Amino acid sequence: MSRFLTPTLESLQPYTPGEQPQDQPYIKLNTNENPYPPSPWVTEALNADETGRLRLYPDPACQNLLQAAATRYGLDPAQIMPGNGSDENLFFALRAFCDETHPVAYADVTYGCYKVWAGLMHIPSHVIPLEEDFTLDPVKYCALGETIIIANPNAPTGLALPRADIEMILRENPDNVVIVDEAYVDFGAESCVPLIRQYDNLLVVQTFSKSRSLAGARLGLAMGSEALIADLNRVKFSLNPYNINRLTLLAGAAALRDEEYFRRSCAAVAGTREWTARRLKELGFALTESRANFVFARTPRMEGGRLYRALRERGVLVRHFDAPRIADWLRITIGTPEQMSKLIETLEAIFAEEGPDHA
Amino acid sequence: MSRFLTPTLESLQPYTPGEQPQDQPYIKLNTNENPYPPSPWVTEALNADETGRLRLYPDPACQNLLQAAATRYGLDPAQIMPGNGSDENLFFALRAFCDETHPVAYADVTYGCYKVWAGLMHIPSHVIPLEEDFTLDPVKYCALGETIIIANPNAPTGLALPRADIEMILRENPDNVVIVDEAYVDFGAESCVPLIRQYDNLLVVQTFSKSRSLAGARLGLAMGSEALIADLNRVKFSLNPYNINRLTLLAGAAALRDEEYFRRSCAAVAGTREWTARRLKELGFALTESRANFVFARTPRMEGGRLYRALRERGVLVRHFDAPRIADWLRITIGTPEQMSKLIETLEAIFAEEGPDHA
Repeated sequence: MSRFLTPTLESLQPYTPGEQPQDQPYIKLNTNENPYPPSPWVTEALNADETGRLRLYPDPACQNLLQAAATRYGLDPAQIMPGNGSDENLFFALRAFCDETHPVAYADVTYGCYKVWAGLMHIPSHVIPLEEDFTLDPVKYCALGETIIIANPNAPTGLALPRADIEMILRENPDNVVIVDEAYVDFGAESCVPLIRQYDNLLVVQTFSKSRSLAGARLGLAMGSEALIADLNRVKFSLNPYNINRLTLLAGAAALRDEEYFRRSCAAVAGTREWTARRLKELGFALTESRANFVFARTPRMEGGRLYRALRERGVLVRHFDAPRIADWLRITIGTPEQMSKLIETLEAIFAEEGPDHA
Repeated sequence: MSRFLTPTLESLQPYTPGEQPQDQPYIKLNTNENPYPPSPWVTEALNADETGRLRLYPDPACQNLLQAAATRYGLDPAQIMPGNGSDENLFFALRAFCDETHPVAYADVTYGCYKVWAGLMHIPSHVIPLEEDFTLDPVKYCALGETIIIANPNAPTGLALPRADIEMILRENPDNVVIVDEAYVDFGAESCVPLIRQYDNLLVVQTFSKSRSLAGARLGLAMGSEALIADLNRVKFSLNPYNINRLTLLAGAAALRDEEYFRRSCAAVAGTREWTARRLKELGFALTESRANFVFARTPRMEGGRLYRALRERGVLVRHFDAPRIADWLRITIGTPEQMSKLIETLEAIFAEEGPDHA
């Protein structure tokens, strides 16, 4: 760091994105990308005419995208705000609803950025441990008097709460915003979007990075009451009014309109997840009940970090978090059936080299 | 605002982007966009293969873009950080180098976002008035003991400081960062990039929105010593590690490589600016000596807001700031020669309707 950095950032711990090594072609199962390309409607939308129009600023109000999203989710455009990735939506939300004397509550094992954003903005974190089996007990989130953020399904565990549990949390915290981060919801969990008209303290955040195959376009949506969305726009127009580029606005609207492609793609990933989970169990892995586009698994045969490295040496990248409680687990993104077969073969080869199970 | 908004944001004044009315086709001279499309190399780079690859996250380190920028500017990649528009670069810089007890100094008449960002982050603003003729006296920026931000050329005046004046400010503030916002530099001012190796307190910020015709792609660059850039990355990786989307990374690299197109396009805009300035003077306007892709002009015949509305009614959009000192001035973006001829004709028609000059 330079001698000019403000002392208030000296102890900051930035987020570490999943690695993108270039030394060899990998089977990349480490950043929860979709194995299928975006809808062909996206490619049609991003044509040469549109690249020529890049000389013009994007619409800061994002009206066309909001209209497509409103139609898709059964909301008003004023109940939705797009972000430069759902990370930006979540950052805006914490900026709007928390500060140095208004904490944010979240689980001990969850998406790592919550802690990083709280650190950047000096928001006190109230960390609530998950149960032994990584499930979240909604009772521990009742009457907290704090902003709450819950990833549902959770990452990296993949475990999902039923909508009724989140509804209880909403009801029991009427004076605080409950942010539900639904990055992975489309692969088999219950969305809380239908609760938005009922609860003015609910903010749902979704992303186009996973189920809509647009991680490279950077697009997320925050959805909630008009008043909450107005707060987020207040932050956006004070920070980066033109936060979404023209091509991403077009890509997002096209992806939202191609509902059939979306459904097929999510179903394919969910099917491959079930196949993968079965095969991993056959190999002796323990798995959580993932409703996301990844599985979370550990084997009694080998410590997590060692298995991660053994896979990496053989050209398969998965994600290992060297963190309390989950150091023995691997988060494995669901790729194509071919990629997952290759994963299983590679695991079999690693275990064969190891010799018999000593666990 | 909602009842959940943090009290620390209640008094915030968000930025108002230039209007984008949809009620009729306008000659749009209000947001300083380039009248020419981006380099054809950009369109080639954003092909169907690349839209298919949108399923993948962008490279958070932006290596290919940084390599192209390093080659173009004669810097190391570690001396450059891209932003989601130069607005994001500037926000990151203020976040890194200022805080509630470390103020930022800037001119009273300059880019409106500086004040907005300071408000969002509770950074005290030290506002230094420009001279009567809107020039900036560099002596007033010596030994301030504060982070300094100077738009060069300035907006909305278009006036540029010679590099030697900024060098004096750098020398006289060795313990504070001096941010030079060069959004408009390519249209005829002196860039401070050549000073980067000499001054570890210099941060230069440029944008692709004006001279590279990529306002719609959202891309800016911060350039400075490795240590300053490391600070900015600390903020980026704590806020939004994947802040630049894949297509913008490609577009930016392609635009940087097509130097000849860039030079021709900037020269064409500068030529049209000189033509426009001459014609406006013939109509009795007073103008600043703009080195940007806009002119800043006022007429003794009519108050600024009224002339703005008269032009708007006739289908020509320009920017009017209802602000102290500049309420009688209009900022007029340089469009194509045809658009500027139409502007002049429209002004002649407005003045003819008004009758003889009463000034």
